[in-house]
Amino acid sequence: MQPTDVRPDPVRTHDPRTGEPGRAVAVEAGPAEVDRAVRAAAVAGPALADRVVRAALLRAAAGQLAAAAEQVVAAADAETALGPARLTGELARTTYQLRAFAEQVEQGAFLDVAIDRADPALNRPDLRRMKVPLGVVAVFAASNFPLAFSVPGGDTASALAAGCPVVVKAHPDHPATSELCAGLLRRAAAEVGVPEGVLGLVHGFAAGPELVRHPLVAAVGFTGSVRGGRALYDLAAARPVPIPFHGELGSLNPVVVTERAAATRAEEIGAGLAASFTLGSGQFCVKPGLVLVPAGADRLEEALTGAAAAVPPGPLLDLRMREAFLAGARRRAAQPGVRVLLAAGPQPTGESGLAVRPGVLAVDAAELTGELLEECFGPLTVLARYRDEDELGAALGRLGGSLTATVQLAADERGPAATALLERLRPLVGRLVVDQWPTGVAVAPAMHHGGPYPAGTSGSTSVGATAVERWLRPVAYQNVPPELLPPELRDGNPLGVPQRTTG
Amino acid sequence: MQPTDVRPDPVRTHDPRTGEPGRAVAVEAGPAEVDRAVRAAAVAGPALADRVVRAALLRAAAGQLAAAAEQVVAAADAETALGPARLTGELARTTYQLRAFAEQVEQGAFLDVAIDRADPALNRPDLRRMKVPLGVVAVFAASNFPLAFSVPGGDTASALAAGCPVVVKAHPDHPATSELCAGLLRRAAAEVGVPEGVLGLVHGFAAGPELVRHPLVAAVGFTGSVRGGRALYDLAAARPVPIPFHGELGSLNPVVVTERAAATRAEEIGAGLAASFTLGSGQFCVKPGLVLVPAGADRLEEALTGAAAAVPPGPLLDLRMREAFLAGARRRAAQPGVRVLLAAGPQPTGESGLAVRPGVLAVDAAELTGELLEECFGPLTVLARYRDEDELGAALGRLGGSLTATVQLAADERGPAATALLERLRPLVGRLVVDQWPTGVAVAPAMHHGGPYPAGTSGSTSVGATAVERWLRPVAYQNVPPELLPPELRDGNPLGVPQRTTG
Repeated sequence: MQPTDVRPDPVRTHDPRTGEPGRAVAVEAGPAEVDRAVRAAAVAGPALADRVVRAALLRAAAGQLAAAAEQVVAAADAETALGPARLTGELARTTYQLRAFAEQVEQGAFLDVAIDRADPALNRPDLRRMKVPLGVVAVFAASNFPLAFSVPGGDTASALAAGCPVVVKAHPDHPATSELCAGLLRRAAAEVGVPEGVLGLVHGFAAGPELVRHPLVAAVGFTGSVRGGRALYDLAAARPVPIPFHGELGSLNPVVVTERAAATRAEEIGAGLAASFTLGSGQFCVKPGLVLVPAGADRLEEALTGAAAAVPPGPLLDLRMREAFLAGARRRAAQPGVRVLLAAGPQPTGESGLAVRPGVLAVDAAELTGELLEECFGPLTVLARYRDEDELGAALGRLGGSLTATVQLAADERGPAATALLERLRPLVGRLVVDQWPTGVAVAPAMHHGGPYPAGTSGSTSVGATAVERWLRPVAYQNVPPELLPPELRDGNPLGVPQRTTG
Repeated sequence: MQPTDVRPDPVRTHDPRTGEPGRAVAVEAGPAEVDRAVRAAAVAGPALADRVVRAALLRAAAGQLAAAAEQVVAAADAETALGPARLTGELARTTYQLRAFAEQVEQGAFLDVAIDRADPALNRPDLRRMKVPLGVVAVFAASNFPLAFSVPGGDTASALAAGCPVVVKAHPDHPATSELCAGLLRRAAAEVGVPEGVLGLVHGFAAGPELVRHPLVAAVGFTGSVRGGRALYDLAAARPVPIPFHGELGSLNPVVVTERAAATRAEEIGAGLAASFTLGSGQFCVKPGLVLVPAGADRLEEALTGAAAAVPPGPLLDLRMREAFLAGARRRAAQPGVRVLLAAGPQPTGESGLAVRPGVLAVDAAELTGELLEECFGPLTVLARYRDEDELGAALGRLGGSLTATVQLAADERGPAATALLERLRPLVGRLVVDQWPTGVAVAPAMHHGGPYPAGTSGSTSVGATAVERWLRPVAYQNVPPELLPPELRDGNPLGVPQRTTG
């Protein structure tokens, strides 16, 4: 066969409401295309050295996305069925995020500038430290946020803010949305005089490992499954030069309801939990998937199942996920000791197409084993009924890392027992929630969206201001003449960045 | 054979001046001893939750070491031959470091507290973030700093400051010093009411992998060779739950001498380089091992070799290192195109025992290949003569990551060419030095001692204030009632830590 006869596989959209394939919007990237995208990104890197340019790029990207809002939301809805309301909100979150990073870039606090003037008494030379970009960042887009955790999402925004060009591995569930957004980001780059290669986009399963192995890729951001994420993490660690892998792989997000909370707030907790675990068809990484409830909390369980049964069925993001959800719910329901309080299942007909109904399972805490301890992506939650503090403690001892843990307390539980419960949960998670629900991850300076493995593969956050720290490393300048220092490190602070000075 | 007949192998001291084995000071740790040490450390962890206790422990440790200074220096000199003057300085650095971390702990800036008050307009709940300790830290001690990078060194001090108990894998070159220091640190723990298990010590090669694999070990600090470090890094990454591995593995520390610097400062640079690469018998991780000099810089080369020839021969840390140094110098001298300007070699007799003489090699930059691009531990440096900017650039393109890069400039080189040279070197290193030498790593807030692989396996520093960041991770508290918040996160700031507040 002649090389000219080798045609790359087309990448097609799919309608999540019917499973029908649509038009081809791109082709799968081979090693040559991945190499080309990474090299183009590396070439564009120096254009991001100037923070003024970076901030302009982030604002221009937000502007392009906002101007094309109607088209972006329509494209994303056609590929994800998440609905215009949710997607309009997600786009607003995405543009807000880009603009928030632009502000951060201008302020420069994340450069973490420290200046120690020479001190002969301490035998100390003149030392000045700041953070610098790592290089090309590979971003693996998530399925469940086609905007906020995909091409124009938090990983891309924070990497550009750090001064790192980006190559995104598109999620196969929304290739057209990815192409559309990448085009808008490239237009934003052109608008501010940055080479368009600053944002590369590649499709296809094989492009993932190719990207992680590329010698010019300096770090990886990943949101996805434990299986896929761990395989890529292992590749990143096995490189001749290992690179940081910031992955969000899976999270059970346990909830603990105290006995007194169940006694005093049963209806409120049941309704709140139903809303949280079914939100977006349960396709949130912070969905509460396991709820430790006191045994005999019948009112709470009834309120929960009643409210969950009333939630309209919704489609999942693709057919594979739908099958995985239904099979996962079935397997869990068949585990010893599990009772089905509300049966998850397919929605046979109707205008929402290939939808699913939410499910609620219950089990004695002592029988909390196997897959009940793993995330089931979609609208399913598992109640584990504990009879006493010992059973609760033993159940918590079986949990892996999660993004969040939530505690539902009675109004008067403000003493040592509640403190001890929070302390018991803290080693397991990156965010502790009291009397609210974990779904909803605010883009805010104090947010932390990460957690112990498998929730995260590093101590980092993928949401909020500190997400930028993943793509930076410190460099110290010793005895460098003022004329040769980056302006951020000079005396007199010509760029007005926060400087901590000693000596 | 009965279990009672299995005797663990003894761990003996060795005299580095003669190679003679001395007394047995400990036994090699098997899996059971490693497990016991890690569990004891984990049990001691909660005692470090209170920052007042942590600071007291660090100060008590400094006090114990200072009070036993004579004994500590004698023990270290007997095992390392580094000499009382250097070791007295190293002990002072070590106690200074412990006290500096105590101050940091009291101030609490590294907790990185951020508070976002609830803002319904932004759909934002009350969020409060701080950093918390990771858990038990495994520290792999270095050979070349029996105090400052060993049992009571920077890794241990920063981990305790972070609130993490420590298990040290002793370096086999100084087991008696390690036991002595561990005893002093444990005495300090007892003095302030912390369980002595907060500082564990294990000996023996097999204890290393055992420690890294232990499920209760949460992070690793390592200073040593590329081979050993990479093997342990790979183990840390391959765990069911991977953990951060902060390693310092090897560093060439390139120096670039510009043509005008060689013309105007030949003697000063030659003498400075000789002093730097032979300091401590070349056994510093920041030893300048490769020097890019303009071709024809005869005066500089003569000044260098003259000064280096006058340096008194010194012993290396152990016989294995001495053999590795002599063999490494021989192999490099035999590479094509290499000229021996000063022959490294053994010192046949005399009162310094098994000493070595420093060596200087030279090669055309175009022939800079193979082992010339790798660190040779000991007093050897390689001059690579470049004929023009292209040859210089090509040589720099062949270098891996280093802790430092040094540039020697002429007094009037303060323009774009010098800036471009620093920018060219920056991606390779963690510290850029101008007109000074890389040896000497000040314990200072703006210091960064780390660098791209293999100099470092993460973006972190093992020296200076920010070394504490390696052992912490952020946790966000959402909507947590004031009574249940850690005091550092409360309104009114009862503990007076730096808080950044929004809303």
